[in-house]
Amino acid sequence: MTAATPPFPALPPAARVGDPVSAVDTPALLLELDAFERNLDRMQAAADAAGVVLRPHAKAHKCPDISLLQVQRGAVGICCQKISEAYPFVAAGIQDVLISNEPVGPAKAALAAELARHCRLSICVDHASQIADLAAACAAAGSRIELLVEINIGQNRCGVADAPAVLALIERIQAHPEQLRFKGLQAYLGSIQHLRSHEERRAAAAGASERTGAVAKALQAAGVHCEVITGGGSGTVEFDLANGVYTEVQPGSYIGMDMDYGRNEFAGSLRFEHALFLASTLMSQGNGERLVLDAGLKSLAVDSGLPLVWGPDGERLDLVYTSANDEHGILQAQGPDTRRPQLGEQVWLVPGHCDPTFNLHDELVAVRQGRVEALWPIAARGLSR
Amino acid sequence: MTAATPPFPALPPAARVGDPVSAVDTPALLLELDAFERNLDRMQAAADAAGVVLRPHAKAHKCPDISLLQVQRGAVGICCQKISEAYPFVAAGIQDVLISNEPVGPAKAALAAELARHCRLSICVDHASQIADLAAACAAAGSRIELLVEINIGQNRCGVADAPAVLALIERIQAHPEQLRFKGLQAYLGSIQHLRSHEERRAAAAGASERTGAVAKALQAAGVHCEVITGGGSGTVEFDLANGVYTEVQPGSYIGMDMDYGRNEFAGSLRFEHALFLASTLMSQGNGERLVLDAGLKSLAVDSGLPLVWGPDGERLDLVYTSANDEHGILQAQGPDTRRPQLGEQVWLVPGHCDPTFNLHDELVAVRQGRVEALWPIAARGLSR
Repeated sequence: MTAATPPFPALPPAARVGDPVSAVDTPALLLELDAFERNLDRMQAAADAAGVVLRPHAKAHKCPDISLLQVQRGAVGICCQKISEAYPFVAAGIQDVLISNEPVGPAKAALAAELARHCRLSICVDHASQIADLAAACAAAGSRIELLVEINIGQNRCGVADAPAVLALIERIQAHPEQLRFKGLQAYLGSIQHLRSHEERRAAAAGASERTGAVAKALQAAGVHCEVITGGGSGTVEFDLANGVYTEVQPGSYIGMDMDYGRNEFAGSLRFEHALFLASTLMSQGNGERLVLDAGLKSLAVDSGLPLVWGPDGERLDLVYTSANDEHGILQAQGPDTRRPQLGEQVWLVPGHCDPTFNLHDELVAVRQGRVEALWPIAARGLSR
Repeated sequence: MTAATPPFPALPPAARVGDPVSAVDTPALLLELDAFERNLDRMQAAADAAGVVLRPHAKAHKCPDISLLQVQRGAVGICCQKISEAYPFVAAGIQDVLISNEPVGPAKAALAAELARHCRLSICVDHASQIADLAAACAAAGSRIELLVEINIGQNRCGVADAPAVLALIERIQAHPEQLRFKGLQAYLGSIQHLRSHEERRAAAAGASERTGAVAKALQAAGVHCEVITGGGSGTVEFDLANGVYTEVQPGSYIGMDMDYGRNEFAGSLRFEHALFLASTLMSQGNGERLVLDAGLKSLAVDSGLPLVWGPDGERLDLVYTSANDEHGILQAQGPDTRRPQLGEQVWLVPGHCDPTFNLHDELVAVRQGRVEALWPIAARGLSR
């Protein structure tokens, strides 16, 4: 109760390298390295076997250490969803970035043109004004950007409708040969990733590939070659690799999986493991019957559903996370014989949706066989410009 | 496309003091200062008129600049929900903090005991083990903490059941007079805040107050005086101030309001205005019929619902935000004559739930009459330990 006086203490770290994971202060986002590395290896091997370039999406994790490990294994570079998001990745040594999204306005174009002075940069466009802004910014910065025209293959979000619309934008791009270059097509499958049945997902991915292939064919007939046709994600990558249309795939969530992707039926040979967990602690028992965790909306994204409950030994528990408040989670035991965690005991959660969950945390605690092996900054957290 | 070479550029700021708000790069979290200051003044005046202490909750915004303005107007100090969250507030000069939550385990107790060397600190408990950990940590740090026993008044989350349970914990507290002191009761109304009808909310708040008052009366009969009875929030504060039980109230969201609180019927005299907006930009029109914003799950919490759509002039627009992807929001025009925003045009959104939305952003852009007046760090963002 002394008055506030300098030097005011910095917060001690939540985790230290070498500590047992039980000593990590919670809530803390954990990556199980053994399962994570198996996921990386499987995806790279599948891309190599298919002869398709792997460009993993960094929006899923926002952590440069992860991207560097993917590039070490053979990835060509990364995707980012926003221009600002790419900055810490390029600063960390990533040399080839695709912004899989459309920047609008001179401020974002200037951010992109500056970034292009430090890496090989490609960006998506779906409107002539985006091209004009990027050309002007590159002229000012003395840099060059490669452009992918996004086509709408059913997601009904961004993207132009057909080959004539692509050709109209290519004409605009070709007016700025010093600053811009047409590289190919972006064709994102969106919510198809999350169709639960293997067969439904396969059929929908095949339909999207066909639409993409038809646009590419029409461009070819008009004398335009697409060096790159890029898209796909963790939910459809096994189909995207096989369909002969995509030259490049963009999966992101496969690194650690989440509850939502875990609900997909994966009947094929390419499967990934849960490697991402939120460590929480039982913080209150109320009258002895309640189970209250110290992790809620500020540590877990719930847009795709509530998390699954696991024990620190990596096994699913017979407990259900039934509601999330800002900083609390409520657990319900499923059976009368369910072992109930004790006050102060760690409970691990599989987040509902990994992308916005990573975006809540500044640090990823990388663990192996029960010990903290590394602390990785989630350096692009919050960078949405 | 040159190779990455130092010096690698820092990201330029998203907003600069003095700029028109139209120049702010998006997504950006905005606070309209005129409405915000009216909200602060109204709440302080209401607390003063009732003779009740105002201790606003900082978990709603995590921004020390806001708390300092509340204390300047008469607030006794602040609440935080987590111990780590309080650190930047105390570092910024806040001298009296209540952690309205239970810390569990020696690591969190040590964080609290260190913090108590720099401010007047009170903390909630609902179990003897929390008291033992805090006493040991304070003995080691040479600090002292005041404790509030949390009682469960219907939220069924944390808190003990009744006066005998409170008395049992007070006995534990009194065993450590050098380190700990019993200060009173925490009684949080929880979801009652969000009952839509004024009358339902009034009745539920009255019931919660009665239960709290009954516990305090039973303690009084046992010879224990509660110096402080604290609780309440923005949804019930008009009732909490009037009910004669609470000596202190803890509203947080009233500073800027959100879509969810905006749906409450406020029939009384104490009303607050929307002062919190997320500035976004129309980034794609697809084939000309779609309206795609550059703000989704990574800029807006959607746990309480999707945001309302406003124009930069502070008027609600005839557009509905119908779905959120990670970095995209989809708008639908409501009528055939609805004016549709143009590519590159700013669209303002009223977030569904302010607390987890603030927790996504590192900076609050304070604007007045269309210009950026200040940039306030959201210094406690992500601090959930």
